[in-house]
Amino acid sequence: MTIERFEPGARMAQGVAYGDTVYLAGQVAADTVGTGVTAQTQAILGQIERLLAAAGSDKERILMATIYLADMGTFAEMNAAWDAWVSKDNPPGRATVEAKLAGPEYLVEIVVVAARSGA
Amino acid sequence: MTIERFEPGARMAQGVAYGDTVYLAGQVAADTVGTGVTAQTQAILGQIERLLAAAGSDKERILMATIYLADMGTFAEMNAAWDAWVSKDNPPGRATVEAKLAGPEYLVEIVVVAARSGA
Amino acid sequence: MTIERFEPGARMAQGVAYGDTVYLAGQVAADTVGTGVTAQTQAILGQIERLLAAAGSDKERILMATIYLADMGTFAEMNAAWDAWVSKDNPPGRATVEAKLAGPEYLVEIVVVAARSGA
Repeated sequence: MTIERFEPGARMAQGVAYGDTVYLAGQVAADTVGTGVTAQTQAILGQIERLLAAAGSDKERILMATIYLADMGTFAEMNAAWDAWVSKDNPPGRATVEAKLAGPEYLVEIVVVAARSGA
Repeated sequence: MTIERFEPGARMAQGVAYGDTVYLAGQVAADTVGTGVTAQTQAILGQIERLLAAAGSDKERILMATIYLADMGTFAEMNAAWDAWVSKDNPPGRATVEAKLAGPEYLVEIVVVAARSGA
Repeated sequence: MTIERFEPGARMAQGVAYGDTVYLAGQVAADTVGTGVTAQTQAILGQIERLLAAAGSDKERILMATIYLADMGTFAEMNAAWDAWVSKDNPPGRATVEAKLAGPEYLVEIVVVAARSGA
């Protein structure tokens, strides 16, 4: 099986595919100025779709999502953005925990493992 | 490879199998009223066994477990329940960290990746 | 596909390979006396290399790394040790969050998923 990297940098790649399994790096919102949990979650989910598309996958084939919230008090707000986005016919596994993120401007971070074949 | 979902809901599935690899959603105890870490850990491990069985796997084929504790002060108590349950001949990888969970009633959450073939 | 365990104990294995995918248990520094984040990170990355070698993999084939820091204030210090070690030609996905670890002496913990074939 081949290993393919997407948006590789000197520190990490934004995604790595091994065979037909795709691992995305933890995604935080690229622009956090003046934004809240809703906007950051929507931005992150958009980034995930873009990275999955580059790897030949899509949100219907997400296997597992790990969501880190800087403040669990925003769980309902994150869920509203998630629920509006997630494939209701093809939902992934999910776990959500509270964790301080790389900077105080980051309110949400999402890690995804997805498939790029199958249905 | 096919993607199979177990106990799917509108927000997430409790498990997703991709080929022979099974990803379970973060499991918390279904009933937390008046329970402590021992009872919640035992309940979660039982839920994991049930979900793995539905997916054609079992605790002997867990590859990796990530355990989130609301209070690391309960590490020894969680470990006692874990040690009584885990397959000593077929132990998985494991990581345990402290994290606030979705509600204050949840003391433990466990995420598992397992195989459904091989030995 | 076969399941192989590396350094198995009664509670967990330090690594489990399923087919050509390798899951390492959360690695903390074996010796923490008087050490800081730099030394602990370097020690952990060395342990990861040793475990990956035992499993037939190497740092060039890490797919995803999850880094837990006891104090996000040490992010830059951890990154310096990481940047000096990571394969710049073959970087993995990565996520870093803050979490209290199993004991206060542990400042860093790293979880890795790697491939043992492919390039």
